[in-house]
Amino acid sequence: MLQSIDARSGTPIGEHWPESNLAQIAEAVDAAEAAAGDFASTSAPQRAALLRALAAELEADREALVALADRETGLGLPRLNGELDRTTFQLRGFAGVVERGVAHERIDDAAVAGPPPAGRPRLTRVRVPVGPVAMFSASNFPFAFSVLGGDTASALAAGCPVVVKGHPAHPELSRRTAALASRVVAQQGLPPGVFQFVEGASIEVGVALTKAPAVAAVAFTGSYKGGIALAKIAAQRPRPIPFYGELGSVNPLLVLPPALESKGAELAATLASSICLGAGQFCTSPGVIVVAEGSAGDAFTAALATALKDMQPHAMLSPGIRATFDRGVAQWRATPQIKPLVDARDGGPATLPRPFLAEVTAEDFIANSALHEEVFGSAALVVRVASTDQAVQVLKCIGGSLTVTLWGAEVQSDEAHRLVRVATQVAGRVLFSGVPTGVAVTAAQHHGGPFPASTQPFTTSVGYAALDRFLRPVALQDAPQWMVDRQGVPA
Amino acid sequence: MLQSIDARSGTPIGEHWPESNLAQIAEAVDAAEAAAGDFASTSAPQRAALLRALAAELEADREALVALADRETGLGLPRLNGELDRTTFQLRGFAGVVERGVAHERIDDAAVAGPPPAGRPRLTRVRVPVGPVAMFSASNFPFAFSVLGGDTASALAAGCPVVVKGHPAHPELSRRTAALASRVVAQQGLPPGVFQFVEGASIEVGVALTKAPAVAAVAFTGSYKGGIALAKIAAQRPRPIPFYGELGSVNPLLVLPPALESKGAELAATLASSICLGAGQFCTSPGVIVVAEGSAGDAFTAALATALKDMQPHAMLSPGIRATFDRGVAQWRATPQIKPLVDARDGGPATLPRPFLAEVTAEDFIANSALHEEVFGSAALVVRVASTDQAVQVLKCIGGSLTVTLWGAEVQSDEAHRLVRVATQVAGRVLFSGVPTGVAVTAAQHHGGPFPASTQPFTTSVGYAALDRFLRPVALQDAPQWMVDRQGVPA
Repeated sequence: MLQSIDARSGTPIGEHWPESNLAQIAEAVDAAEAAAGDFASTSAPQRAALLRALAAELEADREALVALADRETGLGLPRLNGELDRTTFQLRGFAGVVERGVAHERIDDAAVAGPPPAGRPRLTRVRVPVGPVAMFSASNFPFAFSVLGGDTASALAAGCPVVVKGHPAHPELSRRTAALASRVVAQQGLPPGVFQFVEGASIEVGVALTKAPAVAAVAFTGSYKGGIALAKIAAQRPRPIPFYGELGSVNPLLVLPPALESKGAELAATLASSICLGAGQFCTSPGVIVVAEGSAGDAFTAALATALKDMQPHAMLSPGIRATFDRGVAQWRATPQIKPLVDARDGGPATLPRPFLAEVTAEDFIANSALHEEVFGSAALVVRVASTDQAVQVLKCIGGSLTVTLWGAEVQSDEAHRLVRVATQVAGRVLFSGVPTGVAVTAAQHHGGPFPASTQPFTTSVGYAALDRFLRPVALQDAPQWMVDRQGVPA
Repeated sequence: MLQSIDARSGTPIGEHWPESNLAQIAEAVDAAEAAAGDFASTSAPQRAALLRALAAELEADREALVALADRETGLGLPRLNGELDRTTFQLRGFAGVVERGVAHERIDDAAVAGPPPAGRPRLTRVRVPVGPVAMFSASNFPFAFSVLGGDTASALAAGCPVVVKGHPAHPELSRRTAALASRVVAQQGLPPGVFQFVEGASIEVGVALTKAPAVAAVAFTGSYKGGIALAKIAAQRPRPIPFYGELGSVNPLLVLPPALESKGAELAATLASSICLGAGQFCTSPGVIVVAEGSAGDAFTAALATALKDMQPHAMLSPGIRATFDRGVAQWRATPQIKPLVDARDGGPATLPRPFLAEVTAEDFIANSALHEEVFGSAALVVRVASTDQAVQVLKCIGGSLTVTLWGAEVQSDEAHRLVRVATQVAGRVLFSGVPTGVAVTAAQHHGGPFPASTQPFTTSVGYAALDRFLRPVALQDAPQWMVDRQGVPA
């Protein structure tokens, strides 16, 4: 059952309704499959027009959408208006990418006369849309990683129909956005199968969608547990399909001595804000802060604690997410080796969440694998290290992460080299200033780190390379001229 | 135990010797891991020099290598000399790719002032070598898909150390090639870990290599059964790694009416040669021939049978591969719905293999999934279709394939459109003339089709895009100038 709930009060709004049943899911996938051929053959201007019209309609309905999102997520109007801006920017960005010909790019190698290996036939490498993409919306970005978020935008840009599964934590917003999308698809003269929508809170809906034979790829942003379960199903189908899962991340942040000494207090305040941004509900929220032992590190840690103490994150997205946060913090509290620094115990599920910060030695952190797991929310561990060696070990034992931030690596040194190398081995994005929360939508972006941050670390779910996930290369050998002349994919 | 065997006589040559034990495998992987950082930091000229030196040394040792290969594989001197040419062409081709800067390419997006989504920090997208690559040699190309074949060439070009597992069907050749590679690595002043070699005939060696924690990716060419088992192990590691497996393929070939009518007899002779090339031991060997019902199709089928009857494939690579071929043909023979056209039953394991051709209706073929599986060797099924609809169904029920060949699609028509579309959905390469055996090494090549042809259909194991399998993107945010200035990967 689906039910819209006021995130701040926990009050149900309106009636509940049933989730999509198996017949409805099959029907949605069938419609997408039926539309796949025609949509794969669309030209760049056609796809760009669709993406731009989606952006325009989101803006036209902004007031109602943002109000609905605010009620269902509690994220606040400024953030949600900004997120809607980012979502339309992204749709238009992909329109531009398609207009520049990226989705229709080909490599054409002329024939070379003579025997192999130098002699060869003409080969034209094109990229073919994979077919219907199952898209799982995330709870924490009700616009940018939901119904018309980056996964949908990039799949449509690639020429793939999308079957979106709305997130049950913002069900009314999902429905309204989906209705808007279907309207735009019809206005553009495209078959309804280009955009399909299913909904559900139970695991069965996601499983059925992932198993549907015509689904050609899955894009997923969500929990480690849910993502791993669906990835396994995608791999065990009679025809396995790519599962592009972004499963969350610890996002270690290292404050190196040069940064501690030059501007420790300022950075501590910046970091506290990043930890509390959106109540810590960013996949790039910093969860482990690596700080050298010694007085400069002590001062930074104290400044961070002071800054965090006064912060009040807003309500979390759902009672379930709040309960998981409370459980994660309780587990840290129950770990004898950690020393709480910010820990306002008053409150409870009915109150607003309180930030949590604790300190732990590198030895204790490394030895306790439970501490390497993400606690989703405004909670972080300060890990005190005695050496670059220990900092390296801390990064390695955390493993795959969407981001690693290195503050104080501006000046070249052996230590900086070593840390940068390890950071590039464990993360998809390495920052040298600023905070990891906030992911720019651009060509050079990479949002997807080694496992478990991502199930496909060579691909990104943010930025224009996200398109590549849905276009499979095919080499055409001695293709007839009529096919090479076509602007769209050969079909 | 490993034992060199004369492929033609089945006689063991020299003494047998033990396979690599677990300690030796661990040692090889440790050496590769120790070399990974330095090798990742090598410049384009350094990597190109290594690749060119490997090519030169292969050529310098050509006479001995080809003689050894011929003894162990029975593939014959002309083919093996040609294959060595292709292998050195490939090594030098990757050297050229690296020299053109491809492995060190970056996308640099300048910072944009102002708030997001348009405002952004500077982002530099680089590609980082993944680390040690475990490379499984194939039996059927003792040079081009073995110790210094395309997988090794592309991994070295990408800046990744390689741990090669030699193929037990050409163990002496593998050892000699590996010794040559180690010599070249030393001459180039690189650490020995850049190239490591292990050997074994048992599944344990492959499993240990795939499970080794420092192995970052696997490249595999071989059987469906072996590939699937190892792919599963790669996915179930604590840190899953990409498994680039090329598992074989049925390679359907469609002879459309325009081709039947204009030059059926000529094409039948060409096709017979392709089926028998290398005793059918090509991953791109055509295994299903789709021919329309009617007199032109009858004539083509008869001409194909006549051409095949007179052909005598050479000895197969190993007694195991021969036994599998005989079993596959026997299964086809035992299927009541198939009608043998070329079936010289005399002989047996001790004699040379005989080509096999049979005919089956589209209905019977579609209904019997056992007929959709590859028989590795000179054997093919002619599937007679009554309509384009049936041809489409035949392609769809075969599923993922490295290639689909469409003869007679030169003129644009609705049927040609439909078949091209389905072909691009099920194959990684679609040919419009020529035969699928023979894979040009070039930028536009794509050798890897949808599952089960390949475990990673977006990637290729032949051609210069093979490099992309071993370079993971990382976005550097606000990278200091010292790092952006470096030619190599930040490290």
